Amino acid sequence: MAARKTSRRSGEGSAEDRLIAKYFRPLATHPGALGLGDDAALVAVPPGRDLVVTTDGVIEGVHFFPDDPPELVAKKALRINLSDLAGKGAEPLGFLLSVALTRKAAGGWLARFTAGLRADVRKFRCPLLGGDTDRTSGLVSVNIAALGTVPRGAMVRRAGARSGDRIVVTGTIGDAALGVILRRDPAAAKRWGLDRAMREHLLQRYLVPEPRTALAAALRACAHGGMDISDGLAGDLAKLCRASGVGATIEVARLPLSRAARTALAAEPTLIETILTGGDDFEVLASVSADKLDALRQAARRVGVTISEIGRCTRARGDPRFVDAQGRVLEFARPSYSHF
Amino acid sequence: MAARKTSRRSGEGSAEDRLIAKYFRPLATHPGALGLGDDAALVAVPPGRDLVVTTDGVIEGVHFFPDDPPELVAKKALRINLSDLAGKGAEPLGFLLSVALTRKAAGGWLARFTAGLRADVRKFRCPLLGGDTDRTSGLVSVNIAALGTVPRGAMVRRAGARSGDRIVVTGTIGDAALGVILRRDPAAAKRWGLDRAMREHLLQRYLVPEPRTALAAALRACAHGGMDISDGLAGDLAKLCRASGVGATIEVARLPLSRAARTALAAEPTLIETILTGGDDFEVLASVSADKLDALRQAARRVGVTISEIGRCTRARGDPRFVDAQGRVLEFARPSYSHF
Repeated sequence: MAARKTSRRSGEGSAEDRLIAKYFRPLATHPGALGLGDDAALVAVPPGRDLVVTTDGVIEGVHFFPDDPPELVAKKALRINLSDLAGKGAEPLGFLLSVALTRKAAGGWLARFTAGLRADVRKFRCPLLGGDTDRTSGLVSVNIAALGTVPRGAMVRRAGARSGDRIVVTGTIGDAALGVILRRDPAAAKRWGLDRAMREHLLQRYLVPEPRTALAAALRACAHGGMDISDGLAGDLAKLCRASGVGATIEVARLPLSRAARTALAAEPTLIETILTGGDDFEVLASVSADKLDALRQAARRVGVTISEIGRCTRARGDPRFVDAQGRVLEFARPSYSHF
Repeated sequence: MAARKTSRRSGEGSAEDRLIAKYFRPLATHPGALGLGDDAALVAVPPGRDLVVTTDGVIEGVHFFPDDPPELVAKKALRINLSDLAGKGAEPLGFLLSVALTRKAAGGWLARFTAGLRADVRKFRCPLLGGDTDRTSGLVSVNIAALGTVPRGAMVRRAGARSGDRIVVTGTIGDAALGVILRRDPAAAKRWGLDRAMREHLLQRYLVPEPRTALAAALRACAHGGMDISDGLAGDLAKLCRASGVGATIEVARLPLSRAARTALAAEPTLIETILTGGDDFEVLASVSADKLDALRQAARRVGVTISEIGRCTRARGDPRFVDAQGRVLEFARPSYSHF
């Protein structure tokens, strides 16, 4: 653990040393983390493998609500990075963590935060390698840099999609974006005709993404192009198409929607824009040649991930077209989420 | 560049895409950064080398002042990480960057920030690999995860110091801690009898650390134990000693002090505690066997870094002893900087 800003008493270990020992050392199961007792971690990348690195963070009030359970804030922070790795076909190796804590988010918050993180360190076999803990008078923020590996040259790229490829997505689309609306406007549940289970499903999908780590090897074997969906299917597919120099046509009727999303959409058909552009899906988007589609489906079934074919890559460059059951092309006011 | 929170218009690239292209892509000279056009970077670690990873960040109002020049905030954020790598004997490979921007720190601030960063990317041959840009309603913060490499097994450890080793430090000690006092209390310059050049020196040393990257290979060849000094010599040496199971005796009269620090100390002798415990030195602390001392000195001279022998590692475990010219042991009220 990078130990800037440390001790009140150095003799038997400082307050931060104790904090690291109690909360963070149990997460540092990678031998290269050196028990968090050095200034850097030491990673031997296995021969024949490339390192894949990514970083993403969450900020209070931006990516999570101040009253979200700390366990789930931790899971979200790690999982959005694991989702990036999964979309690249990479297996997790470990991660670096930076936490800025406010006065209110001190001991109790941190205990719950690290408990949630510990569960995911085990679940995804992604140990803590090192980190940095600071005080802030601003907002709580959590930044993670995740390291993964792929066999040399096998990273799944954004730029790999080819005209004629089938476009697939994992899981269901739009749940998290609807979940955010429910957090801000609980009355929407009634308007949309959701029962309790449907409401809970959407809220949960916003709080805890499901990175498709288990699918990484199958993606490497089958996908031409791929990425995870974090800013909404429409915007992220546009990025995949631009990087690959292809277009795409999506059949909206084939989109995998949860029962909750279907119910909401039936009550309020304009929600299709939220579903396609709202973001926070953390599902995998990939392009696959037709002859590999079955192999990918079978591999996905084996690891318990659903895969849906939703359209094709086309020769016509430009933004993807989303076509409804009547053959009409959908237009979006705001293709994907933006701060800028 | 992880492109969460992205476009207003996806067609010809979003506002964040343009921001990435304009400000960040010029820093991404590593081929594995893929021009920041993918969701992760791809790093082939050279055969026979280990990866060394570390993370550290700066937060407005905690690690820098809101009115600090953005160019220097960028340099500081990168250099504190490069200093960690240097202390481990590692050569920089590249870095991941996360920036949380406030409304006031938008375009103009970012242009200056990335200009400063670009200069250091070149100077230290440490290209940007990827990153994440977010808005915050809190404080500006910059988080960096730095990757370096060492020949397999050659990382300099905290735990490597041996009884009888000579203790050396690079550069001068205490300047940055005195610089912080000057920022908060400009009248101190007069009290300490500093001329303008001395004042500027201390302020500069706080703003822009000098990572001892050039010394990495020599440290690997000569040092038993090592780390960079970020929380003050007293506290960080205590960590080195604890990790190595040794004690240490430091001769305070041998501490390398700048002309400015000597002048201030002469006017106000109690500043010795600030000098030894104030932090933000970002110099290298290492333990070296007596027979390697000359080789290290010569190597340091070749790369233009000063090295000073300040004491020895001892058999007696426990906190390091700081002994003055009269043989008295100094006692500190607060051995090193702490948030916790």
